[in-house]
Amino acid sequence: MKDDTAPRARDVIFGTQQPRIQQRLDDLDPDLGAYIRDFAYDTVYDRPALDLKVKELIACTLLVSLGSPPELRTHIRGALNAGATEAEVRDALMLCVPYLGFPRVVAAFEVLRHHLASKERPAPVTGAGPVDSGDQ
Amino acid sequence: MKDDTAPRARDVIFGTQQPRIQQRLDDLDPDLGAYIRDFAYDTVYDRPALDLKVKELIACTLLVSLGSPPELRTHIRGALNAGATEAEVRDALMLCVPYLGFPRVVAAFEVLRHHLASKERPAPVTGAGPVDSGDQ
Amino acid sequence: MKDDTAPRARDVIFGTQQPRIQQRLDDLDPDLGAYIRDFAYDTVYDRPALDLKVKELIACTLLVSLGSPPELRTHIRGALNAGATEAEVRDALMLCVPYLGFPRVVAAFEVLRHHLASKERPAPVTGAGPVDSGDQ
Amino acid sequence: MKDDTAPRARDVIFGTQQPRIQQRLDDLDPDLGAYIRDFAYDTVYDRPALDLKVKELIACTLLVSLGSPPELRTHIRGALNAGATEAEVRDALMLCVPYLGFPRVVAAFEVLRHHLASKERPAPVTGAGPVDSGDQ
Amino acid sequence: MKDDTAPRARDVIFGTQQPRIQQRLDDLDPDLGAYIRDFAYDTVYDRPALDLKVKELIACTLLVSLGSPPELRTHIRGALNAGATEAEVRDALMLCVPYLGFPRVVAAFEVLRHHLASKERPAPVTGAGPVDSGDQ
Amino acid sequence: MKDDTAPRARDVIFGTQQPRIQQRLDDLDPDLGAYIRDFAYDTVYDRPALDLKVKELIACTLLVSLGSPPELRTHIRGALNAGATEAEVRDALMLCVPYLGFPRVVAAFEVLRHHLASKERPAPVTGAGPVDSGDQ
Repeated sequence: MKDDTAPRARDVIFGTQQPRIQQRLDDLDPDLGAYIRDFAYDTVYDRPALDLKVKELIACTLLVSLGSPPELRTHIRGALNAGATEAEVRDALMLCVPYLGFPRVVAAFEVLRHHLASKERPAPVTGAGPVDSGDQ
Repeated sequence: MKDDTAPRARDVIFGTQQPRIQQRLDDLDPDLGAYIRDFAYDTVYDRPALDLKVKELIACTLLVSLGSPPELRTHIRGALNAGATEAEVRDALMLCVPYLGFPRVVAAFEVLRHHLASKERPAPVTGAGPVDSGDQ
Repeated sequence: MKDDTAPRARDVIFGTQQPRIQQRLDDLDPDLGAYIRDFAYDTVYDRPALDLKVKELIACTLLVSLGSPPELRTHIRGALNAGATEAEVRDALMLCVPYLGFPRVVAAFEVLRHHLASKERPAPVTGAGPVDSGDQ
Repeated sequence: MKDDTAPRARDVIFGTQQPRIQQRLDDLDPDLGAYIRDFAYDTVYDRPALDLKVKELIACTLLVSLGSPPELRTHIRGALNAGATEAEVRDALMLCVPYLGFPRVVAAFEVLRHHLASKERPAPVTGAGPVDSGDQ
Repeated sequence: MKDDTAPRARDVIFGTQQPRIQQRLDDLDPDLGAYIRDFAYDTVYDRPALDLKVKELIACTLLVSLGSPPELRTHIRGALNAGATEAEVRDALMLCVPYLGFPRVVAAFEVLRHHLASKERPAPVTGAGPVDSGDQ
Repeated sequence: MKDDTAPRARDVIFGTQQPRIQQRLDDLDPDLGAYIRDFAYDTVYDRPALDLKVKELIACTLLVSLGSPPELRTHIRGALNAGATEAEVRDALMLCVPYLGFPRVVAAFEVLRHHLASKERPAPVTGAGPVDSGDQ
């Protein structure tokens, strides 16, 4: 279902954090981790009609509808990794207002603010590199 | 908030059915009709960062999250009117599976099927032209 | 928990249709019918701090949040029976817009419109009296 | 993930209607039909720890939480096919009251009532056999 | 849409914390802050049919339906600011039990408890004045 | 509605923590505490058709549908107290994937992981005994 020359969706979305995120899911339950990798990402996400940026903007808004669980931050980063501008992410979140009302959207912009704030801070010099908890 | 040379989102989404749809909303409540036109469409929808096709694909998936109310059909048509292919609409609906589960998505594909089936039938020759109930 | 001189909430909300509505619930399941009468109405609804009109306006908006199931029509009628004006019902439904978005509210105004339309029609002269299906 | 001597979950749940139901899903979208069969049923449903009756009672209550879409009827029938008694189905639906409130549960008992009523009627003598629309 | 002699809904609801709350929303996104102020409050909230106390009790219960996001505390305070008694707030939250079930309501009473507890403590004597995080 | 020789559902579910949990609910609101004890547990939960293990597995999945509020941990423990194995709890949570999607299920497995991790640690030797906050 996937063009062999294109990178996998999960490689772009998760970037360098993919091993850590996959390990965290596998630790919750190895089958759950496998279902997410094999079915959610390598089967559904890798369908060919939409480009990854659009998929990630859709993912962000679906996560807003679910009350902005920690996955929202992962997919905000995924949308930016896939080429979306900050303005595009903001307008995608804003489009949720007429469909879902303001409280869901305020919560989403809080997540966006935390993500942008964490990027502005200089990276810590400890060896392990940045680890943002709560991501998936 | 809008580029004056671009058509308004609601002109493209609703197409020739705009007067009928706006009238139906105004009949429910004139203020409700005005809020949808002035705030939802002419303020939020006309924000400039995303193109209308992406906005409409996002709208479709948000309506799947809400249980596929009648507005889903309007925005499936809106996505197609804005240049989305049928395959893009299908992949947007399918991307809801990992976030929302199957029942919401099955309901959405039922709406898509009804819409596609109504387009295949030859238009009735009565004077009033096609009117699809339940649209917004 | 109830002032003995005040009418029971369910007497006002259901009016002359109370026997029919209770019978319909008992037919679904006698225990379910009893829980709704004894717990929902005679315990929770009959709490003393709020007047019934306010309770029914709250009930209407909670039912909007649930996607306007058939109970919404019962409680729109209940709010009117408890002394709410049509304008108060409309403003209660409209207050859902900033919290829940437009699709839930459009569905609610459709229910209101059906209720108001059914009241405008002259009652049928058949013996059985008015029966509006789908009410609870 | 499945004991080879046990029947597949979908064989028991759908019974003689499996070809019709699978065809309906494939008609909506062939990939959607395949995901439901291969992932939802043959991967998740066929996990070994719980017996099928318990799985179907859980499925029923999850569908109540989603607002009782048409799939609820399929899984009420599935629970009965897997050996649940009518009293067990009723108590599973009733257990949703403290978690989800009454409107969701009333809607579910309406579905149960329709299912039970359709079984009491003598089968039509036309050749095609019984076909209950709206099932999945 | 507003009686010029009546105070604005947001002046009463937010009280002395209005500048802080508006600033927090504007920091998330200036357009989001403007939409909430101009559309949610100065257009929808200032509709004339219901008094502000009733609007705020409705707002509280809608926020219970959304899972008690931080805005619930703002509107519990808003209901009290608009003249609701603690008993009225408790009965409004309790009325959510038959519609939404217990878990949503337990979460709401936790928010109420936190709000009441914070009011009982003597104000700190530091210069900056009380700041309750998480409010909107 | 209850076999007098069987233990009450809430005795098994809450175990030794019942007094603490009931006190916490009563502190939120004495009527709320009474409704949960008398209606939710001693009326609905004590219905006779299903055994307690099945009821608790259903409760767990309904709480997943609600976004895994703190009650989920109580009922994971309740399911284990009622005789469910860890594998049965895992398969019940996993069955939510096709109905609710992955984010709700990931959140639920996080709760399970916290519960299992807290049991592995040796109990503190302070006098008061273990108190896990956020339980109900």
